[in-house]
Amino acid sequence: MKTRFYNGFILTMEKDLSVVQGELWVEQNRVIYAGSPKETTISWDREIDLQGNLLMPGFKNAHTHSAMTFLRSLADDQPLQEWLTESIFPMEEKLTPDDIYHLTKLANLEYFTSGITANFDMYFHPEKVAKAAEDTGMRTVILSGLSDFNQSVAEVEQAYLELNNQEKYTGLVRYEMGFHAEYTSSKKLLEELAFLAHQYQAPIYTHISETQREVAECIQRHGVTPAVFLDQLGLFDFGGGGYHGVHLTAEDIEIFKKRNVSIVLNCSANLKLASGIAPISDFMDAGINIGVGTDGPASNNSLDMFKEMFLVSGLGKVRSGADQVAGDDVLLMATRGSAKAMNLTECDSLASGQLADLVVIDLHKPNMQPLNHITKNIVYSGSKDNVKLTMINGKIVYEDGQFHAGIDAEAIYRKANEIIQRMKA
Amino acid sequence: MKTRFYNGFILTMEKDLSVVQGELWVEQNRVIYAGSPKETTISWDREIDLQGNLLMPGFKNAHTHSAMTFLRSLADDQPLQEWLTESIFPMEEKLTPDDIYHLTKLANLEYFTSGITANFDMYFHPEKVAKAAEDTGMRTVILSGLSDFNQSVAEVEQAYLELNNQEKYTGLVRYEMGFHAEYTSSKKLLEELAFLAHQYQAPIYTHISETQREVAECIQRHGVTPAVFLDQLGLFDFGGGGYHGVHLTAEDIEIFKKRNVSIVLNCSANLKLASGIAPISDFMDAGINIGVGTDGPASNNSLDMFKEMFLVSGLGKVRSGADQVAGDDVLLMATRGSAKAMNLTECDSLASGQLADLVVIDLHKPNMQPLNHITKNIVYSGSKDNVKLTMINGKIVYEDGQFHAGIDAEAIYRKANEIIQRMKA
Repeated sequence: MKTRFYNGFILTMEKDLSVVQGELWVEQNRVIYAGSPKETTISWDREIDLQGNLLMPGFKNAHTHSAMTFLRSLADDQPLQEWLTESIFPMEEKLTPDDIYHLTKLANLEYFTSGITANFDMYFHPEKVAKAAEDTGMRTVILSGLSDFNQSVAEVEQAYLELNNQEKYTGLVRYEMGFHAEYTSSKKLLEELAFLAHQYQAPIYTHISETQREVAECIQRHGVTPAVFLDQLGLFDFGGGGYHGVHLTAEDIEIFKKRNVSIVLNCSANLKLASGIAPISDFMDAGINIGVGTDGPASNNSLDMFKEMFLVSGLGKVRSGADQVAGDDVLLMATRGSAKAMNLTECDSLASGQLADLVVIDLHKPNMQPLNHITKNIVYSGSKDNVKLTMINGKIVYEDGQFHAGIDAEAIYRKANEIIQRMKA
Repeated sequence: MKTRFYNGFILTMEKDLSVVQGELWVEQNRVIYAGSPKETTISWDREIDLQGNLLMPGFKNAHTHSAMTFLRSLADDQPLQEWLTESIFPMEEKLTPDDIYHLTKLANLEYFTSGITANFDMYFHPEKVAKAAEDTGMRTVILSGLSDFNQSVAEVEQAYLELNNQEKYTGLVRYEMGFHAEYTSSKKLLEELAFLAHQYQAPIYTHISETQREVAECIQRHGVTPAVFLDQLGLFDFGGGGYHGVHLTAEDIEIFKKRNVSIVLNCSANLKLASGIAPISDFMDAGINIGVGTDGPASNNSLDMFKEMFLVSGLGKVRSGADQVAGDDVLLMATRGSAKAMNLTECDSLASGQLADLVVIDLHKPNMQPLNHITKNIVYSGSKDNVKLTMINGKIVYEDGQFHAGIDAEAIYRKANEIIQRMKA
């Protein structure tokens, strides 16, 4: 499949946020050219007139629990710990592996509508999440949701080996090692995981310092904050990432910097669960890599990168000052920053040789006008209705409000409703 | 023109947030029936199959400065006072009345895309704002932006009489009395305005307690907070409304309650300008009427009611607890609450005799599935891409991403770009 995009703006993100006029060529799953218009003898399968719209790298959603779509608008208006133990865990016990497959597909469709071309998904039954990714065309980095109650270190190792076997999988799926959180994991479990991480020189990812209570209880249990405790166990010796980080201390931030650990922001979930506002400008000042995630649809309750981007900037400003956390910096977090956190640097810019994960932003909408500053428009006034086209791995998965022909969206919606009705029965 | 909507859900908001299956009939600019399917001999101009989607009253945007579209993404990352005096006021000086007409039209298109069927607009040259409303089909309540630097009380009176003359205007436009803010208005000016308000028994609207600095300076000048000061002048003797209210005190909230003054929340602007987080649950506890506004596109920078609704709930929770400011309450604020603040109670429910200002929410999108709780879905996971159709005063102004035939969107975009280029030259 050979696709040519022409007659538009391109934000390559190769060096900076410059927007140039030009065209972009895709062959199979890779970009083969991005730049000024030029002659070619290539015979195209499709030529897409951008009509002055903007082509840019897709957004990377660096923290998700996709299958939790079934809980959307079912468990709201509760603080995190009660929400988790009283509303979420009991419902999750009723999930079958097949449910996870269908519910993850629903989330993948939602990612497409928001221009999200890859997600970093912590959940159970990784083989089902992988199948959902392949069947919908989503790029997913799967992460173990290891805890005292779910999965074992041996299962993590098995999934790590199996899902990173690219001969078996199509190249849309990768797997990383992670665990749910300090407060759901015994020291013994974490020591076993650290041993595994060292064996494979693997980064480790986890929820960290999301609530004040979590930090206080860790200090009670272990005498130190979660970041210090996990670092002492050697879990961050090969980098990795922490989700939320609302209550990270200055010492914790130092550890993130020293160990090359990314922070992944989940602003809308932090508001909705009243966890607090992360010290985003402190993260920026420390020079640690910052990614952006939506969290799961039970928390926040949508999978919308435009909502998250506005919040990263807005919450950064309301906490630290209106001149902090500028829009352009946030756009980089939601694309390159997330990609780095997910080890997806092969699809974080539109340059020849990169994977073709991209999005067309419709500038012919009132919220993008006038064109004073396109990249700031995207962060400050963009919305999902500006997503005109989403391409993943060279394949158009969403265009003008329609999913690609291989997806029966209505069947996926029906299935999700059936699953939740069965659970409630 | 007679339009029938059938085969969908209807949220009438007549009594509560119940969602029923049924149909809705519109004749000219009024709803003539909403309820269960029934036989009729009416000959319809158009019958719209809702295909299971949701019909609900349109959102009312209770605080705007529409013509400020030209400043979108031009003045960012500054605190409010510098932003206003260094970036906004100098650019506004270059505006012509015709610019205001064209730039307001651009904002009106953006309202349509977000399902906003009425706005409450504080700006200059009310006759131009009125013409923009009529030429695009927007319902606008126009508010004087009186201050020491703009307009006079005599001009306010003239506009009040002229724009509330319904024989001259089509019924889309009304006018209310307001002033910019305490910090831009002398006591003498406010006394004159209070005299006028008493003469016409008119409510008064203003920005109030948006920043800490504003409150501190008012206390320095007058010895009391802005709300106490304005109340002492008799400005709220016939009700009215305050915009922002981030730093209202308990005593101020009492005044709002006693004087029947609405509070209008502008959450995204408060984040982006780092003004703070309003005590939303305190407003609710006090039982004052609460509306929602986007503020102007130079502040926040979009005119998106979905963004605002999520923020009202999220900021309410992060300030006061996860069990506060529930989604359903917020949906009422953005519709009925705003309508009450704007004296638009004729278009706040879908009942026979009401004005036909309504929106069709597309439920056949992944972010609306499963249908666990439709009204919470709208607030917590809804977005502009769920707006399938917007009708104002019985006329469809936006449908499936297209504006009505009387609007040349590209010409409006071109004009907005020309205006800002001329100003920068």
